[in-house]
Amino acid sequence: VRRPVVIVSNRPPVAFHRDPHGDLVARRGAGGLVSGLAPLVVGTDTIWVAAALGDADREAAAGGLVEVEGFRVRLLATDPNQFALAYDVVCNATLWFVHHGLFDAARRPVHDHRFEEAWSAYVAINDAFAEAVAEVAPEGAVVLVQDYHLYLVGQRLAELRPDLAAVHFSHTPFTGPDGLALLPDHVADALLDGLAAYRACGFHTRRWARRFEQCWDERRTTPAPRTFVAPLGPDPQDLASTADGAAARAAATELDALIGERRVIVRVDRIELSKNLLRGYRAVDRLLAEHPEWREQVVLGAFVYPSREGLPEYLAYRQEADALVAAINARWATADWTPIITDASDDYPRSVAALQRADVLLVNPLRDGLNLVAKEGPLLNQHDAVLVLSSEAGAVEELGEAAVVVNPFDVGATAEALHTALVMSADERAQRAAHLRQLAARHSPATWLAHQLEAVDEPQAPVEGNPAIVPN
Amino acid sequence: VRRPVVIVSNRPPVAFHRDPHGDLVARRGAGGLVSGLAPLVVGTDTIWVAAALGDADREAAAGGLVEVEGFRVRLLATDPNQFALAYDVVCNATLWFVHHGLFDAARRPVHDHRFEEAWSAYVAINDAFAEAVAEVAPEGAVVLVQDYHLYLVGQRLAELRPDLAAVHFSHTPFTGPDGLALLPDHVADALLDGLAAYRACGFHTRRWARRFEQCWDERRTTPAPRTFVAPLGPDPQDLASTADGAAARAAATELDALIGERRVIVRVDRIELSKNLLRGYRAVDRLLAEHPEWREQVVLGAFVYPSREGLPEYLAYRQEADALVAAINARWATADWTPIITDASDDYPRSVAALQRADVLLVNPLRDGLNLVAKEGPLLNQHDAVLVLSSEAGAVEELGEAAVVVNPFDVGATAEALHTALVMSADERAQRAAHLRQLAARHSPATWLAHQLEAVDEPQAPVEGNPAIVPN
Repeated sequence: VRRPVVIVSNRPPVAFHRDPHGDLVARRGAGGLVSGLAPLVVGTDTIWVAAALGDADREAAAGGLVEVEGFRVRLLATDPNQFALAYDVVCNATLWFVHHGLFDAARRPVHDHRFEEAWSAYVAINDAFAEAVAEVAPEGAVVLVQDYHLYLVGQRLAELRPDLAAVHFSHTPFTGPDGLALLPDHVADALLDGLAAYRACGFHTRRWARRFEQCWDERRTTPAPRTFVAPLGPDPQDLASTADGAAARAAATELDALIGERRVIVRVDRIELSKNLLRGYRAVDRLLAEHPEWREQVVLGAFVYPSREGLPEYLAYRQEADALVAAINARWATADWTPIITDASDDYPRSVAALQRADVLLVNPLRDGLNLVAKEGPLLNQHDAVLVLSSEAGAVEELGEAAVVVNPFDVGATAEALHTALVMSADERAQRAAHLRQLAARHSPATWLAHQLEAVDEPQAPVEGNPAIVPN
Repeated sequence: VRRPVVIVSNRPPVAFHRDPHGDLVARRGAGGLVSGLAPLVVGTDTIWVAAALGDADREAAAGGLVEVEGFRVRLLATDPNQFALAYDVVCNATLWFVHHGLFDAARRPVHDHRFEEAWSAYVAINDAFAEAVAEVAPEGAVVLVQDYHLYLVGQRLAELRPDLAAVHFSHTPFTGPDGLALLPDHVADALLDGLAAYRACGFHTRRWARRFEQCWDERRTTPAPRTFVAPLGPDPQDLASTADGAAARAAATELDALIGERRVIVRVDRIELSKNLLRGYRAVDRLLAEHPEWREQVVLGAFVYPSREGLPEYLAYRQEADALVAAINARWATADWTPIITDASDDYPRSVAALQRADVLLVNPLRDGLNLVAKEGPLLNQHDAVLVLSSEAGAVEELGEAAVVVNPFDVGATAEALHTALVMSADERAQRAAHLRQLAARHSPATWLAHQLEAVDEPQAPVEGNPAIVPN
């Protein structure tokens, strides 16, 4: 890495807690980004600025820049109520919904006083992040700001430290101009102007970059900020070490016993409206209705774990999904066979084991920035699994040619795609699986990081034509 | 009109019934398009092809091309079940929802067997329309096909009668590429290819034309079909004659008694999810909470009448709206004052009287192709009414500079816009009202028809710079 680097994200790479002796100890945090970036960051001068999430994090935050688990971390402690308002109301219940097209627009959003209060909290927290970065960033550093929690950091940072070069990266989709209108005007304008303060704005696909540019072009008269495309990929070593671990091997044995000789369709997702669980279950129902030959012969293993249950939309969605599974199982199950098996435990080794075992991998989000599971699955799988992939997932730009691409809103088409995948010849499966492995391995956290560092200074060539970029 | 003209629309310009002697008699149909076009069409050679809606229409349809009420009409009788499937399921419950952004996408649409059956019906009915036009159209005629019910007519017509020149006009918005993905792929493709078979595709605003072009560009490699912009305007004579009629004058007297000395905000809408009734009511609630000076001083007259009640979404929406009005009235009403008065009768003269009497006209759809009420109101009004107009209504492109423009999703901003309108000085009201009248009168059914006829042959200059176009 040529210039000093500061990574800025809401979620920290380490989580603190107090051990039985009352000492503050740290553990590496969960999440694909952290595990992927760790080998690139640990032991380097790179500084990571993130929010203090729990009480122990807050105590650690008082120490300023700390070195722990090989990371140099600056945790930022903000008022917990303010943080919750910004995170729950603005980030998760509004920006996430806007970018993923999840609002039932005749009814929501409403933008009441609570939203305005939460928006002020969002602005304040973004400013606090900028101030923390300004304190710790070495002269001339590159600042890599992550995701929709932190759209406004670059603007304040440019005032405080004009020597720094900040880049923003969106892990979500970006909505188009009609979707942006769902935000209050001053908020939509603040997001656009906030993003314009960065040297460049990165996205997982050309499609989301184009949406951002369309939003800009319809609301602004100046040229759009520079965008770049840098798809993330899994870290193959990290995947392999989980797959080789005892937990994944035990889960694999358990899974084999559960599934037996049957074919298995696997999905691994948070319980999240954008993941489109409902239509995935309906597609299995339709598959069994239209193709009776699969009754008792196929199982959907739905490894879907709860998320954001503080938001009523997520609780309601989980209840709907559970009720639908129960109804479908009641319709088709026999003494020996349950068509849909769900497992709500957030158990990463178990998910890895399931991805290894899958005959078909169903990834059918109704909109998704990238969807890393669509890449992890092919890299892990040992059964030449067919990937049934949503046309609305960012990953389709890279993997589409080797997947069975499906419109996620079309239940009938999804059922037919599952059937196509299940009847596919062994030769074609092997050929597609090899192709998928190649495409899924093309990018990694290392290439993704390198893309961002390049984007600081140079206009970027379209990612489609790029050879894999090796990090410095 | 230089070339013979055929107008094609789902709704006919005349409705038949049997009189007491058993004879088939016709009356002019309702709707702004019919009353606006009538003076331009009646007594000319123009032929109007439309669907037979009732039993008497079906009997009249058997007679082929008939002359009645000055119109030359060819009614098309299709199988009633097939017609209902196409009209209810495809047109109203799917295409309307897609173009207006009304789906709660985590749950709907699902595209089950019923949708596929309905889509086949839609295709069949479009083909039947094309065949009827092919039978009656004079050599070399211009065919003006109206709206989302009839996207596919041009394609079949081009095969049957290559001598004809067909143009399509959308009275709705057009969704962007992310919204188009909500349709099954083959349906989205059929719509784009269907529209591409016309000489040109017309829209009320540049915004919807751009959305269509964006959909095309993201799904096709050939250049987009030619688009044109032709905003509709009210027929001033038609408005004036209703306003001068006995019914409107009686309604005005009644209204004066009801409102008394208070200020009145008026809205006139179908009960329709896109019209955003809920946030309109919430804005009044917020206005009364934030600005106590308006309590007992202002009334919202909501002239909102039921529509499409065969669709469960519309019944549910009506119930929600009614419950919200009841809650708000329960919160604020006093012995002498009810803040929100609703009138669910579909009474055009009464609506006209209300538009004449309004102090403020609230037009806050969450998306709207044009919204003719936003133009009718200023032309009718006698109190220098302030127009509070949604940024998402097509009419904002023409009227925005003289209106108080509001983000329809932002209840707080809508409440403030109402307050701004209510406190506006008499001078500013008069000045804006004069400006609005001028802008609203700029286009009429005659200029709109002329735009379409021009679009057959010539690339069109942007409508913004156009002087009003006088029809031939």
